[in-house]
Amino acid sequence: MTTVRIWTDAEVERDPAVKAVFDDIRSTRKSDFVNNFWRALANDPPTLKRTWESVRAIMGGDGALDPLTRELIYIAVSTANGCSYCIHSHTAAAKQRGMTDAQHMHLLAIVGMACETNGLATGLQIPVDPEFMV
Amino acid sequence: MTTVRIWTDAEVERDPAVKAVFDDIRSTRKSDFVNNFWRALANDPPTLKRTWESVRAIMGGDGALDPLTRELIYIAVSTANGCSYCIHSHTAAAKQRGMTDAQHMHLLAIVGMACETNGLATGLQIPVDPEFMV
Amino acid sequence: MTTVRIWTDAEVERDPAVKAVFDDIRSTRKSDFVNNFWRALANDPPTLKRTWESVRAIMGGDGALDPLTRELIYIAVSTANGCSYCIHSHTAAAKQRGMTDAQHMHLLAIVGMACETNGLATGLQIPVDPEFMV
Amino acid sequence: MTTVRIWTDAEVERDPAVKAVFDDIRSTRKSDFVNNFWRALANDPPTLKRTWESVRAIMGGDGALDPLTRELIYIAVSTANGCSYCIHSHTAAAKQRGMTDAQHMHLLAIVGMACETNGLATGLQIPVDPEFMV
Amino acid sequence: MTTVRIWTDAEVERDPAVKAVFDDIRSTRKSDFVNNFWRALANDPPTLKRTWESVRAIMGGDGALDPLTRELIYIAVSTANGCSYCIHSHTAAAKQRGMTDAQHMHLLAIVGMACETNGLATGLQIPVDPEFMV
Amino acid sequence: MTTVRIWTDAEVERDPAVKAVFDDIRSTRKSDFVNNFWRALANDPPTLKRTWESVRAIMGGDGALDPLTRELIYIAVSTANGCSYCIHSHTAAAKQRGMTDAQHMHLLAIVGMACETNGLATGLQIPVDPEFMV
Repeated sequence: MTTVRIWTDAEVERDPAVKAVFDDIRSTRKSDFVNNFWRALANDPPTLKRTWESVRAIMGGDGALDPLTRELIYIAVSTANGCSYCIHSHTAAAKQRGMTDAQHMHLLAIVGMACETNGLATGLQIPVDPEFMV
Repeated sequence: MTTVRIWTDAEVERDPAVKAVFDDIRSTRKSDFVNNFWRALANDPPTLKRTWESVRAIMGGDGALDPLTRELIYIAVSTANGCSYCIHSHTAAAKQRGMTDAQHMHLLAIVGMACETNGLATGLQIPVDPEFMV
Repeated sequence: MTTVRIWTDAEVERDPAVKAVFDDIRSTRKSDFVNNFWRALANDPPTLKRTWESVRAIMGGDGALDPLTRELIYIAVSTANGCSYCIHSHTAAAKQRGMTDAQHMHLLAIVGMACETNGLATGLQIPVDPEFMV
Repeated sequence: MTTVRIWTDAEVERDPAVKAVFDDIRSTRKSDFVNNFWRALANDPPTLKRTWESVRAIMGGDGALDPLTRELIYIAVSTANGCSYCIHSHTAAAKQRGMTDAQHMHLLAIVGMACETNGLATGLQIPVDPEFMV
Repeated sequence: MTTVRIWTDAEVERDPAVKAVFDDIRSTRKSDFVNNFWRALANDPPTLKRTWESVRAIMGGDGALDPLTRELIYIAVSTANGCSYCIHSHTAAAKQRGMTDAQHMHLLAIVGMACETNGLATGLQIPVDPEFMV
Repeated sequence: MTTVRIWTDAEVERDPAVKAVFDDIRSTRKSDFVNNFWRALANDPPTLKRTWESVRAIMGGDGALDPLTRELIYIAVSTANGCSYCIHSHTAAAKQRGMTDAQHMHLLAIVGMACETNGLATGLQIPVDPEFMV
């Protein structure tokens, strides 16, 4: 299905640049499991490294938003963009970070509501109120 | 610019169905200001009423997510959908609910990151790992 | 604002390939007005010709759907895609073909509803019921 | 595949709030079949109720547009948004409301055409003609 | 899965209008293989003919961009639009036209980067610099 | 219009982390002009730095695709995503890298064509041919 090769652990072992990123993923997440997204990006080590370091900084490092809220936002964007893979992987990540079923369903209600008013506001071509301008 | 008429307060006063919704918006928000979105929806009173009641319930009522988190999710979806009006109105709402500049920029960093990995995962057509399935 | 040159009537007069398409637009629509979309496409006469002939066939020719329904569908797609120009031009076309204010607002209510359930179904990753398969 | 539980009829029977909505779906549609969308929303009874009542009012109630046209618009939006589930469910609904194969293919030709000119108009950043302004 | 019938070669043989297009596809591509996209469009011969002639002209004819670059652009758009079918078919076409694995991964890195900055620029609602205006 | 502050040169001078990135942008591009995108990201120095370094590597460094092709892909994605700012900034960048008017119009014809077949393939829900699978 994928348009590129999904790297196995044996293949990762043979490429030091890829192995270094996989080692960091495993130690950062405290888990041996590395999901297909990184195994596909392994085909391009610089993109693998850059993407992982960005994800680690934005989703895992210090920051103004708490870890669960970050995942909720990630699910929201992935849903609006229709990315099935990211919906699944970040719904799993959100559950690991404590998302309850009630929070999950509230999130989806907000996503649906936002999509609806986005459609209405766009179809109506409503001008932004001066009160909302910075 | 708008594709429909934006109702003035004088027009609202003359239509009891619209006025009832505007009164509820004003008392719920404790503010006389009613933004253009509702003034455009006033052209269709049943849609005005249904949309307002949904927004009030999902964004303002009890729920598993706190009020600020709800607005962050709304901005995230509106950004992914490219709805300029909703980005402005919900960025203003989030600030009213206490969003700091640091939270705002962290939110946007997550939105950008999610859009990037959505694009990568879609272009790679990565199969969902069995570990992510419910 | 546009990324290409918008052709004036004088420029159109000097290019026979462009003029032929503009003449056909004017005679088909029984109006001298040619909107900016075609004046921008004039920078690429083969694309201008191909696009106009497709639009004329699909939106203007015989077909299983009536002329107004075609415009409603065009507005719906343009709204979901966030194309401000096409929302304006096809809302105007729909009004020319008889769209009432009530039909316009009903259209937008459906667009909003569809966007909402699209967001919900995508976020929930609901499998298609076998009953819906051809 | 779904990110939430799909409720069985037995589970629905045990939850009065969910059962009330399912009963209304069945009696409104005069059919025992309730599709997965509602079985997934059952995880959040208020969202289930609100969404069903909105769908019932917009798609099934009185309105300025006829029932088939409503479904054509729904398919158009769902296609532009890339929602596979809604494309399947509303294509089935449109067929139930009498959509012919010729109407279906005409619909898709319009959707494709609109997507093409949306892309062109957006890439060209064409300014809206003053003639199209309300 | 498809919402329409996929035509077999035997069915194509019986419809002269469809057969003429299929013959042209086969002779243009110097291959007997005709992919499902055309077999689905066969349900609407005028759309089949118009779409094929447009694709042949834009992707196969003379033009300012070389054949491989055209396919890279096609993949980029299909990825941003989330069209799984077109990602697969045009990734295959790009490989036939000589796309290397390194070019494929560079393409996807650009697509991801563009999606990220699109998200950032939209969320920030940045005004276009006068320097970028034509 | 923007939802954050656009930093002036005077403000940039007072923040060493932001100044370092702006200095690198100026020396890399051999130009004093720094566009609004970076002046908005200056509100979040780590995101400014990370985004600039990614853009510099992907769009400016060595790579399998030539500099102009990279910009064409960027425009294509930005158009599909409806990001007006990025369409303008990368159309300007492509022209700086030698994009001719004919290449620009061919690019847009491909973008339009891809959007059309994306819409058709999605509405038809066409299954991927086994021949296209890796």
